[in-house]
Amino acid sequence: MKCKRCRRAGAAVELPSHHAAFCPDCFFVFFRRQVTEGIRRLRLLVPEDRVLVCVSGGKDSLVLWDVLMDQGYETEGLYIDLGIGGYSDRSKEKVLAYAAARGKAPIVVELAKEGIPIPEAARCTRMQECSICGTVKRYFFNRVAAEGKFTVVATGHNLDDETARLLGNLLHWQRDHLARQHPLLPGAAGGLVRKVKPLWRVSEVETAAYGFLKGIDYVTEECPMSVDATSLVYKEALSRIEDRMPGTRIVFYQGFLDPSNPLRKGPEGAAKDEGALLPEEAPAADAVRVTDIESDEGVGAPRACSSCGAPTYTEACSFCRLKERVRKAREQNAARVSR
Amino acid sequence: MKCKRCRRAGAAVELPSHHAAFCPDCFFVFFRRQVTEGIRRLRLLVPEDRVLVCVSGGKDSLVLWDVLMDQGYETEGLYIDLGIGGYSDRSKEKVLAYAAARGKAPIVVELAKEGIPIPEAARCTRMQECSICGTVKRYFFNRVAAEGKFTVVATGHNLDDETARLLGNLLHWQRDHLARQHPLLPGAAGGLVRKVKPLWRVSEVETAAYGFLKGIDYVTEECPMSVDATSLVYKEALSRIEDRMPGTRIVFYQGFLDPSNPLRKGPEGAAKDEGALLPEEAPAADAVRVTDIESDEGVGAPRACSSCGAPTYTEACSFCRLKERVRKAREQNAARVSR
Repeated sequence: MKCKRCRRAGAAVELPSHHAAFCPDCFFVFFRRQVTEGIRRLRLLVPEDRVLVCVSGGKDSLVLWDVLMDQGYETEGLYIDLGIGGYSDRSKEKVLAYAAARGKAPIVVELAKEGIPIPEAARCTRMQECSICGTVKRYFFNRVAAEGKFTVVATGHNLDDETARLLGNLLHWQRDHLARQHPLLPGAAGGLVRKVKPLWRVSEVETAAYGFLKGIDYVTEECPMSVDATSLVYKEALSRIEDRMPGTRIVFYQGFLDPSNPLRKGPEGAAKDEGALLPEEAPAADAVRVTDIESDEGVGAPRACSSCGAPTYTEACSFCRLKERVRKAREQNAARVSR
Repeated sequence: MKCKRCRRAGAAVELPSHHAAFCPDCFFVFFRRQVTEGIRRLRLLVPEDRVLVCVSGGKDSLVLWDVLMDQGYETEGLYIDLGIGGYSDRSKEKVLAYAAARGKAPIVVELAKEGIPIPEAARCTRMQECSICGTVKRYFFNRVAAEGKFTVVATGHNLDDETARLLGNLLHWQRDHLARQHPLLPGAAGGLVRKVKPLWRVSEVETAAYGFLKGIDYVTEECPMSVDATSLVYKEALSRIEDRMPGTRIVFYQGFLDPSNPLRKGPEGAAKDEGALLPEEAPAADAVRVTDIESDEGVGAPRACSSCGAPTYTEACSFCRLKERVRKAREQNAARVSR
């Protein structure tokens, strides 16, 4: 099959959802346009932004960093070493190797040094690993962004990730989550950084193809903590539908983001309507109320954590509360051992 | 495993979504309660109703008829012979045999005699079989109900059917369809009969188990026209999610029906809000505006079809327009043959 764009080279990537097939060079053009269009349509980034790209060592985040650098954004990478044994070691290697090849040195946070490696924290608090991981990452996104004067944090979530999450939220009618799910989560004064997902329009297959054809070496293993994640069940269900009806995912997600979608407004009486960010009218990052369910939850401007100063809506931020739980559990274990 | 209700007999049916397992007798109790509860919660039927039960020969509709008869409703069965070769013959046999065993004789409509057997109508109009079938059935539901002075028409759609349809409507954000999808579609003066789906709370597996254990003999083959139906793709996707997370379907559907769900209100400015039927406030059947997408579409009271007098929002009803298309196509074919 010939490339449907240049009609000369052989097609290397077939995309049923776009009724297209591209040679590598034309696929690069297509892919970058999809990302650019995703950024433009939701006004995720401005040229002046200083972007902190969160890189896990997987394909999505490395591809995101690659595209943003190629498009001239000022970027730095942030790698959070979760302390998950060999998986974290291998992921870090990939990040460092990729960064070095682009003349970059990523910012590295090591959770073991911060006293909160994910597996141990999960064991002693009896919390879910993925839940702890989320809390920890959000904390460091804000902290590293503030320390490094970044204007925005970018993560590599793709269309498959976002639609799986959307399906899960719809199946359980999680209205709060639905009202706040968006590729742009505005920041707020007090240290809450804006967060964006520039890959929201591209699928996992497309990202993988881009990474492969660009020769980006990434970890292919999934995080060992996430093998039972319900999001994988939703992702697989949507994959089967997409296989039979190509294009369903993007229609599903774009229809959800449509400003006229009543689910974008949040539960009645929850006083969150103002904060629901609409694609057509994304306000400047600092002029928006906070409705970021991914940060410490709340409405209005956050205050400073009594312990660490991080933005929060409670006395102590969720990261400090988590650290405190881990510290207490460690003390109890130590006491048990010494008895 | 023992029955979790009587704790004596061995369990014959295991229901992970209810954390239950029942012996046949206790399963009958459970199943009937689910149907009764579905009728009660949405006020689908009143004891005085004269119910026209649409029976296809499949498990769902025969089980529905069985349960409604056992619960003392005044019912008659309606079998529409679609004229789909051996499939229709075998289906009719099952319906007649079941009815005879219960001392009933179903009302039978033969589409071949009415001049509009599905396969031929689809061939000569180049319309989808399922679309024609829907139009034809809706027409006869209203007509037979009016002729026989039935107050309500009941169909055998189960939870799997309804959630598959809901998922399809959500994936494409079909707001009109979402606003009107409901187990109770109110009737209206002018010949639009109320339509209800009393099995909305029970799954396909549960209906099949009820039919099997009650010794109801039904056709197990799917309609040959529906093998490519997209609804089957949605059904399968939801089955995989349900297998991994039992109970997801009923949570999904009940959350959708919740009166506070903004999707129940229809698109802004579409002036359909009044008609959106809410579970908590189902009005009397004759006091409601028509928003039945399954009938000839429209808002307000229908008028009479200029050709047959059936309720419609256009000059001629969709059934008469369909018949006219079939008639013209036949004439053209005949002219072609005679040339």
